[in-house]
Amino acid sequence: MVRPVSTSLSPLGPGLLGTREAVDTVLADFLHAKARSAVDGRLPGEITQVLREFVFAGGKRLRPLLCALGWHAAHGAGGIGPLIRTAASLEMFHAFALIHDDLMDRSATRRGRPTVHRALADRHRSAFRHDGGEHLGTSAAILVGDLALAWSDELLHTAGLCPTRLAAVLPVIDAMRTELVYGQYLDLLATGRPSGATDVPLAVIRHKTAKYTCERPLHVGAAVAGAPYGLLAGLSAFALPLGEAFQLRDDLLGVWGRPDQTGKPALDDMREGKHTVLIALALQAADEQQTRLLRTHYGNPDLDEDNAEAVRAILQATGAGLAVERMITERYEQTLAALADLPLPDGTRHHLRQLVEQSVWRAA
Amino acid sequence: MVRPVSTSLSPLGPGLLGTREAVDTVLADFLHAKARSAVDGRLPGEITQVLREFVFAGGKRLRPLLCALGWHAAHGAGGIGPLIRTAASLEMFHAFALIHDDLMDRSATRRGRPTVHRALADRHRSAFRHDGGEHLGTSAAILVGDLALAWSDELLHTAGLCPTRLAAVLPVIDAMRTELVYGQYLDLLATGRPSGATDVPLAVIRHKTAKYTCERPLHVGAAVAGAPYGLLAGLSAFALPLGEAFQLRDDLLGVWGRPDQTGKPALDDMREGKHTVLIALALQAADEQQTRLLRTHYGNPDLDEDNAEAVRAILQATGAGLAVERMITERYEQTLAALADLPLPDGTRHHLRQLVEQSVWRAA
Repeated sequence: MVRPVSTSLSPLGPGLLGTREAVDTVLADFLHAKARSAVDGRLPGEITQVLREFVFAGGKRLRPLLCALGWHAAHGAGGIGPLIRTAASLEMFHAFALIHDDLMDRSATRRGRPTVHRALADRHRSAFRHDGGEHLGTSAAILVGDLALAWSDELLHTAGLCPTRLAAVLPVIDAMRTELVYGQYLDLLATGRPSGATDVPLAVIRHKTAKYTCERPLHVGAAVAGAPYGLLAGLSAFALPLGEAFQLRDDLLGVWGRPDQTGKPALDDMREGKHTVLIALALQAADEQQTRLLRTHYGNPDLDEDNAEAVRAILQATGAGLAVERMITERYEQTLAALADLPLPDGTRHHLRQLVEQSVWRAA
Repeated sequence: MVRPVSTSLSPLGPGLLGTREAVDTVLADFLHAKARSAVDGRLPGEITQVLREFVFAGGKRLRPLLCALGWHAAHGAGGIGPLIRTAASLEMFHAFALIHDDLMDRSATRRGRPTVHRALADRHRSAFRHDGGEHLGTSAAILVGDLALAWSDELLHTAGLCPTRLAAVLPVIDAMRTELVYGQYLDLLATGRPSGATDVPLAVIRHKTAKYTCERPLHVGAAVAGAPYGLLAGLSAFALPLGEAFQLRDDLLGVWGRPDQTGKPALDDMREGKHTVLIALALQAADEQQTRLLRTHYGNPDLDEDNAEAVRAILQATGAGLAVERMITERYEQTLAALADLPLPDGTRHHLRQLVEQSVWRAA
């Protein structure tokens, strides 16, 4: 249930331009070395192969980018190597999160390709396995995800950070992991049976998007640069409403977005019964008939376009759509106020502002 | 496919006596603090609850014990707190490994209780979920395992090791994780279709038991004590043949062991079609009729006691059973020779010797 982040950033200024390429080079080199070790140790090469295909099939590298911005925000100085490798470790961690997520969601495709468990099931399909390799695919994908997690650690441990800086980064990473898993767990329990309560979807948004995707990557980069505690708090004040606004927008696009722009099927959120703030607000305000309709169609895996239109109409008629737009605007303003308060280099401020606009006001 | 370690150790001498209790106290306190954080953050408490039940349902704490022995082997000095917390992090890591392993094996019980995915499926069984909570149980268990892995990191990071010692421990941990996952992966691919090749089962044994269970815990403890490289190499020379002998014994017990002594069903290995050195050697030596019989019965999930007896007879008649006994003896002797070469405190040498005897010559 971790969403691909669909915002795209225009070219960045000095020091940031090229972050993505630098991170990708680190990831490619790391996986290449691992593939060679596997050959030397006569170990199965398909793990690194599958992981490489997954990592390089796409992805916006938003977390590495925010990590780099956090470093700039903290006036990072000196060689950029350790920062880039730390940023790459966040991307490797994200690969872990997505691989396990796709298993839990039973997703067949990601980034336009078969998901890891599907690809592995296909690879091991044989007459000998009566389930067509399904269970083996699932098991192997659990292991590939586990290894991506272990390797995200290894990337961080070998980033070349001095021991003091590494000691500053580790608690941030530990917190981020716990937060993400709790967010996923909450999401898992809530999906399929939304209620009128907004606290659950808000907690999911906070842990999975606001903290995991926005706040912690900024903190990691800032910690690499040796940022004082005050700056971390300031970055939180900026990142948390930004992440929430981003995800609330995502929820609106999940209902009203155009598939040709969002790149995902139009009815997925509704069919899945995603417990969003949007549906919670609608259930709060719905009359008896509207409630019955929402209960019938929202979360129905066979929902068709006509019934989806009926659901959309109720989400609108109850005022839920508008209320979510208001929540987005509120968080947008909080984000900008926090940004104004942060003592940032001009270039960094500019990029963060650009990121805010692109994340909050988007159609894709 | 990670086996419960069934060797039991008699009371240990000064400095080791109480390792288990000390480790369990650390684990209990850590999980208690996590449970409180979850309450404070209004996060689901069942993750810590399930994990606590799992960790304290049993387990011999072999890895923490070997970690402590590694520390003593390296003449560890000073407060024992960081060592114990590091040892506890290995046990938390082991919880991760077992939880995901039980998923892959589709095991219903572990340590006499429902496995984590079974317990979570039962907890969330409801009319609303048409599969009786199966998929939710699987997904939630993946997440509980992921969190155990993240928390094993957190235990290590907060062990109170000085930065230099932590920097010495991290590469050992990184290597251990990669080795375990590769071992699991090899095992996964080989199970159900054993061949006459012994290299695959030997690689599985080396990665999963010799390295993960024996060598790396010793290394971790030694690294905590600041051991020089030479000692690590000496510990490897001791631990690798020990771990191999241990696992080869386990494979023999999987076929000829008495369930009332081993605590596991007598036919599991044969029904599962576990690709052991034993079956590989039998397939190498078998004549046409024996091969046909092995192919029919070994790996048949419905294998009955009569046919199991036929398989046992072939494993004996081909000389495979005896050959594996010889391999065990060979490794036993290598282990003792390596032990004699290690410059150890007397007490540590005594405990390691005791561990060897109990691991290699056992009926349970």
